[in-house]
Amino acid sequence: MLAEIITIGDEILIGQVVDTNSAHISKELNKIGVKVYQITSVQDDRTHILQAFEDAKKHANLVIITGGLGPTKDDITKQTFCDFFDDLLVEDKNVVENIQKLFKKYHLNKPLPANLRQAMVPSKATSLMNLHGTAPGMWMEMDETVFVSLPGVPYEMKHLLKEEVLPRIINRFSRPFIYHKTLLTYGLGESAVAERIENWENDLPENIKLAYLPSLGKVRLRLSSTGNDEKLLQESVDIQMNALSEMLSDIAIGFEDETSIAELIGKILTEKGKSYSVAESCTGGRIASEITHYAGASSSFMGGIIPYDTNLKTKILGVSKEIIDTYNVVSIPVAEEMAKRCCKLFESDYAIATTGIAGPTKGDGDEEIGTVCIAIATPNGIISEKFQFGNDRFRVIEKTANKAFEMLLKEILKN
Amino acid sequence: MLAEIITIGDEILIGQVVDTNSAHISKELNKIGVKVYQITSVQDDRTHILQAFEDAKKHANLVIITGGLGPTKDDITKQTFCDFFDDLLVEDKNVVENIQKLFKKYHLNKPLPANLRQAMVPSKATSLMNLHGTAPGMWMEMDETVFVSLPGVPYEMKHLLKEEVLPRIINRFSRPFIYHKTLLTYGLGESAVAERIENWENDLPENIKLAYLPSLGKVRLRLSSTGNDEKLLQESVDIQMNALSEMLSDIAIGFEDETSIAELIGKILTEKGKSYSVAESCTGGRIASEITHYAGASSSFMGGIIPYDTNLKTKILGVSKEIIDTYNVVSIPVAEEMAKRCCKLFESDYAIATTGIAGPTKGDGDEEIGTVCIAIATPNGIISEKFQFGNDRFRVIEKTANKAFEMLLKEILKN
Repeated sequence: MLAEIITIGDEILIGQVVDTNSAHISKELNKIGVKVYQITSVQDDRTHILQAFEDAKKHANLVIITGGLGPTKDDITKQTFCDFFDDLLVEDKNVVENIQKLFKKYHLNKPLPANLRQAMVPSKATSLMNLHGTAPGMWMEMDETVFVSLPGVPYEMKHLLKEEVLPRIINRFSRPFIYHKTLLTYGLGESAVAERIENWENDLPENIKLAYLPSLGKVRLRLSSTGNDEKLLQESVDIQMNALSEMLSDIAIGFEDETSIAELIGKILTEKGKSYSVAESCTGGRIASEITHYAGASSSFMGGIIPYDTNLKTKILGVSKEIIDTYNVVSIPVAEEMAKRCCKLFESDYAIATTGIAGPTKGDGDEEIGTVCIAIATPNGIISEKFQFGNDRFRVIEKTANKAFEMLLKEILKN
Repeated sequence: MLAEIITIGDEILIGQVVDTNSAHISKELNKIGVKVYQITSVQDDRTHILQAFEDAKKHANLVIITGGLGPTKDDITKQTFCDFFDDLLVEDKNVVENIQKLFKKYHLNKPLPANLRQAMVPSKATSLMNLHGTAPGMWMEMDETVFVSLPGVPYEMKHLLKEEVLPRIINRFSRPFIYHKTLLTYGLGESAVAERIENWENDLPENIKLAYLPSLGKVRLRLSSTGNDEKLLQESVDIQMNALSEMLSDIAIGFEDETSIAELIGKILTEKGKSYSVAESCTGGRIASEITHYAGASSSFMGGIIPYDTNLKTKILGVSKEIIDTYNVVSIPVAEEMAKRCCKLFESDYAIATTGIAGPTKGDGDEEIGTVCIAIATPNGIISEKFQFGNDRFRVIEKTANKAFEMLLKEILKN
């Protein structure tokens, strides 16, 4: 059982849009034991689309196509889909009804002809009703291969996938079990981790695969296995994962499913009945934004302050002007004072504070671009550290956020 | 002149990583007149990689490959690359030196054997020195097709692309000019826009292509053309773009290159010598994070406050408890009070305030999930509006941020 994903749209091939749909579809297919063989992005071009369909059919029993279903003239997927199946477009009354309902629900004017054209679907296709947009999904079969076409708008695609496509796949195909477990480590590079676990890795059973997933300041280690006996599969992966996490106990901070470190911190603090807050200067809201991205953040996160302008560190947060003048705005004493006062202002048990020069130009201080001070206030005192994160603005912000979460998590786990 | 991009890595095909590299490479190639024919993501599997190389060679004069160059065992790209060219891996002394320099620069221990293995490159390849990581890029030619292999770490890839790859492409290939211009519109759906410009679109010259790029609350309209006479190209697109922006003058807010609406706001405010701040409840730092993502934010952005916990709206921002109790925390009066007091606290000319229920569970108020109030404080008063953004948390946050930027921009452009 193999799947392929085809995304259609010139906007992807000129880099105007990042294709996030394919990652979402892959992840969801993976969960139900469907392996994705290849992801292909092609142009809004009939010949190219037909070629991609032909190629995909060679490997896959399931081809999921996104994009190209909009009501405007740059969208030719539906007609090409029809040509591929040697079929004709016919009006689907249920889709017409759905479009009319949507327009009524959102208090819009009557559907335009362009909207109603979306109810034209290939006669051999099963329409998949899109409750969040006017373009229906389509399910069609040819020579034992299933083709599914979905709109490219991520929100609509996600709902159709979950409500209409995945249940149909589960019914239609028998699939093996896939089991992944991922260990999250902080503070050691990929090569150093590899060196440390080399012997264990060499002895890994054939059917268990290890992948290194490095990113700024962290390495995720993923074990995967596929098989028909779910229980046996999980047990054999879990045994290896236990061995691995023991070998790396000093740098491992937990297992990861969908969990980000921000979510992990939120969960632990909620369990302990503790709270936290943030005072972000150089990260400018990035840390708070990651925290509040996740549902349930409000049970442990009190809020944050972004004193972007230096004077506001004094005015709102109450960091004394003397400390700033004496030590520089990017300094350990200022970071520590920010963290301490953040706890007080937000009445939280813990606080993260960041101050630094993200670049590309120097700020109010004398420090070099990339210099960052992070402080973590805890019920037992304050820890802090100074870093040099290079001269790329986005990288400095991201590294600072990752490092701050890492420092906070380590403190939380201590107590 | 056509290019293809191949990304290698199981992590992409199981959806653990979103492939952002391809969009970056496409955008950069596009700027220098290189059209990307296809983007393909393949597994860490020798046969599959070789097949992808063969297929790409059929269409493209240039194949850019990312990923699979890490020091660990899941990375087989380099050996496969070698096999494809019927070549052998040899040690490149310059790469060894670069690795040693990097370790010294970052005060690391001596390079491990795994690190030094990265200096092994195919004998026929030109190594592209990676100043930010241990894996070199590689440039190789076969039957008039150039293959370039780059590391998958986005930061390293971007630097190598800019400093080593693009200049070589410019030298090696003659390319046509490509010219795009994108109009940013807010407040009207894709179909309604299409209906309005239908006659003009039908009369567009053959060589100018129109694309609709819709996303939450906005539609971008991109005109593109390719040719050998750069001046003529720009002129013909600009004429059409002027006509288009006049037709849509009520919903068009500007042209977009790399500019986000947050950057556009920052630039206009800086020119006017004005400043702004944000008070974010339901958006939780998302707006501030978008603002500070861009270099130069500090010249107009004073800072922000995230009073996530309801009581903090009173304690830190000074919104009276009476207003909250009388009108509900998610209400126009509370949003307006937040915006007004945010201006005062941060001493800014403008302020954005958001309060709402992002979900998935209800908050402190009585309002339904998805209810959001946005207020914009300006030197001439306050405007505000109440919205219903549905029941998907991420979508509510994103729609609120987009709408808030749109409202602020409209106010700024008025004065």
